[in-house]
Amino acid sequence: MITIALDAMGGDHAPRAEVEGAILAARELGVRILLVGIESAVRQELNRHRQRNLPIEVVNATEVITMSDSPSQAFRRKKDSSVHVAAKLVRDGKADALVSMGNTGAVMTVARFVLGTLRSVDRPALAAAFPNMKEKVTVILDVGANVDSKAVQIEQFAVMGEIYYRTIFGVKRPRVAMLSIGEEEMKGNELTREASSRLKQTSLNFVGNVEGRDVFRGNVDVIVCDGFIGNVALKISEGLVEHIGGMLKKAIKSRLTSQLGYVLSKSAFDDFRRRTDYSEYGGAPLLGVKGITIIGHGRSNPIAIKNAIRVANELCRSHVNEKIEQEVSAAAAVAVRG
Amino acid sequence: MITIALDAMGGDHAPRAEVEGAILAARELGVRILLVGIESAVRQELNRHRQRNLPIEVVNATEVITMSDSPSQAFRRKKDSSVHVAAKLVRDGKADALVSMGNTGAVMTVARFVLGTLRSVDRPALAAAFPNMKEKVTVILDVGANVDSKAVQIEQFAVMGEIYYRTIFGVKRPRVAMLSIGEEEMKGNELTREASSRLKQTSLNFVGNVEGRDVFRGNVDVIVCDGFIGNVALKISEGLVEHIGGMLKKAIKSRLTSQLGYVLSKSAFDDFRRRTDYSEYGGAPLLGVKGITIIGHGRSNPIAIKNAIRVANELCRSHVNEKIEQEVSAAAAVAVRG
Repeated sequence: MITIALDAMGGDHAPRAEVEGAILAARELGVRILLVGIESAVRQELNRHRQRNLPIEVVNATEVITMSDSPSQAFRRKKDSSVHVAAKLVRDGKADALVSMGNTGAVMTVARFVLGTLRSVDRPALAAAFPNMKEKVTVILDVGANVDSKAVQIEQFAVMGEIYYRTIFGVKRPRVAMLSIGEEEMKGNELTREASSRLKQTSLNFVGNVEGRDVFRGNVDVIVCDGFIGNVALKISEGLVEHIGGMLKKAIKSRLTSQLGYVLSKSAFDDFRRRTDYSEYGGAPLLGVKGITIIGHGRSNPIAIKNAIRVANELCRSHVNEKIEQEVSAAAAVAVRG
Repeated sequence: MITIALDAMGGDHAPRAEVEGAILAARELGVRILLVGIESAVRQELNRHRQRNLPIEVVNATEVITMSDSPSQAFRRKKDSSVHVAAKLVRDGKADALVSMGNTGAVMTVARFVLGTLRSVDRPALAAAFPNMKEKVTVILDVGANVDSKAVQIEQFAVMGEIYYRTIFGVKRPRVAMLSIGEEEMKGNELTREASSRLKQTSLNFVGNVEGRDVFRGNVDVIVCDGFIGNVALKISEGLVEHIGGMLKKAIKSRLTSQLGYVLSKSAFDDFRRRTDYSEYGGAPLLGVKGITIIGHGRSNPIAIKNAIRVANELCRSHVNEKIEQEVSAAAAVAVRG
């Protein structure tokens, strides 16, 4: 049975949402959960549910990282935070995966330095799943673990992202593309030109460069880019969804002349919200660190938390980190021969 | 009277939409228009309208740049294209501004090399206006004229963008920000850190770094970034609007149980389309070249074309290029002293 160390203090509705998510996961997924956080607060929530026979345990941590902590401060000054304690459980072999809905930068920093990077991987990458027009998802990485990446690191992101897509979305040979500003190879910048020429030499199903608008078209499965670009892409998308959501609400309200019209529009709007919310898709894995790490959105509800645990479980069960070490090494060997 | 050289062959519905846009502009804005394109085709459209007393003339060009021409091919091989001829009219003082709804890359290349760059400006920048939640616009530049920009060039983009915003959107002291991946100065990459520290020393109203989601929040007016980042931001936004539009249409159709419900939702949807379409805001100026250049979306309708001409007219009348030369020089002088 896979053991998940769940940061019980991370999300906007912690520890309530985390405890409910843990219960759903333990009941439905057959995983063991270590709920890591302020023990009294976590137990109080847990007691509300009377779930005696589920494989859920509480592990105490005396500190909490907040959204306003900077990653480096959180890492250096809060050594007994729920994130640290959960990461140490993974490092020490007491858990297989770390799942947190907390401060993304802080979780990445703690995971990276407590767990360490996989052999043969230079830098970890955060992968986010974007829903697309084909009603599937497009995975983009890196969305913010690093900036100023080099071409060889982009190549490693591609290998890791492809393994993740294969494992979680069940596609045998995902199409991998480089995010650029035009499909022609000569467009783009120095980094994309060098990275594209490397990617062509790998055994990946590399289909070339794509533009920003291809993120939503569903004509490719995995898109790689530097973390600065990926983070801008992610935040622009979140911002635009928020903006359009606000506009639709206003438009719907201002046209409210019948109860029926409202009900129709309201449910169309709810559909929209649900289908643009990538947290539905199980959180963002930080690929390339030892031990699986999944970071979810702070506003995750119990179902989103259960989904993140499900993804963590699947990544553990399919030995994704062993595959990453093997395949990144293999790609490097090809590059040396090439 | 300001004279506009309008590329009559650029847009998806050329020359029909261009001719109608020219008529609207000549009638409403008091500008003179040189319609540049295949003379027979342009005259045929013009004759449909019997607008004898308007200051519209036709200038012949024998070639047309298509959306599939690469910028460098279009520049080198189609020297008598409508874009070239229009640019030469500006270069030779026969027109004040070039307006085109054509292939953005090709228009930028032709404008840059036929017109030349302004004294004291290293590289031109393409500026795009994004509608925001405050029902105003946020201008981002560069959205794709250059890649691999240096900090000094980002600073020049800021000066040019500020002048553009002041001139067209009537804000005395626009708030200028650097696009990064977190507000703290230490976040971001090498370029943003160096550019931010330069921007602080200018006389601009520089408010620091913003994230991708701030593009739509309306808490800043002008956002600067490297053209690779800006282009990804623009294309991601276009792609997401297209995606959400498609989803809403489906959702509305699938819930169609009454005519009333449909009418309500349809008009909410049309609102949405109109308000996320930045071409409503008058096209994207290529700032930093001699002679005003405005590039609009290929799908521009006559009203959008008239708006682009209006913006070109205002930029000419307010001597925006003289201001750019003066203020970029002044900023460089501060940097030398600092």
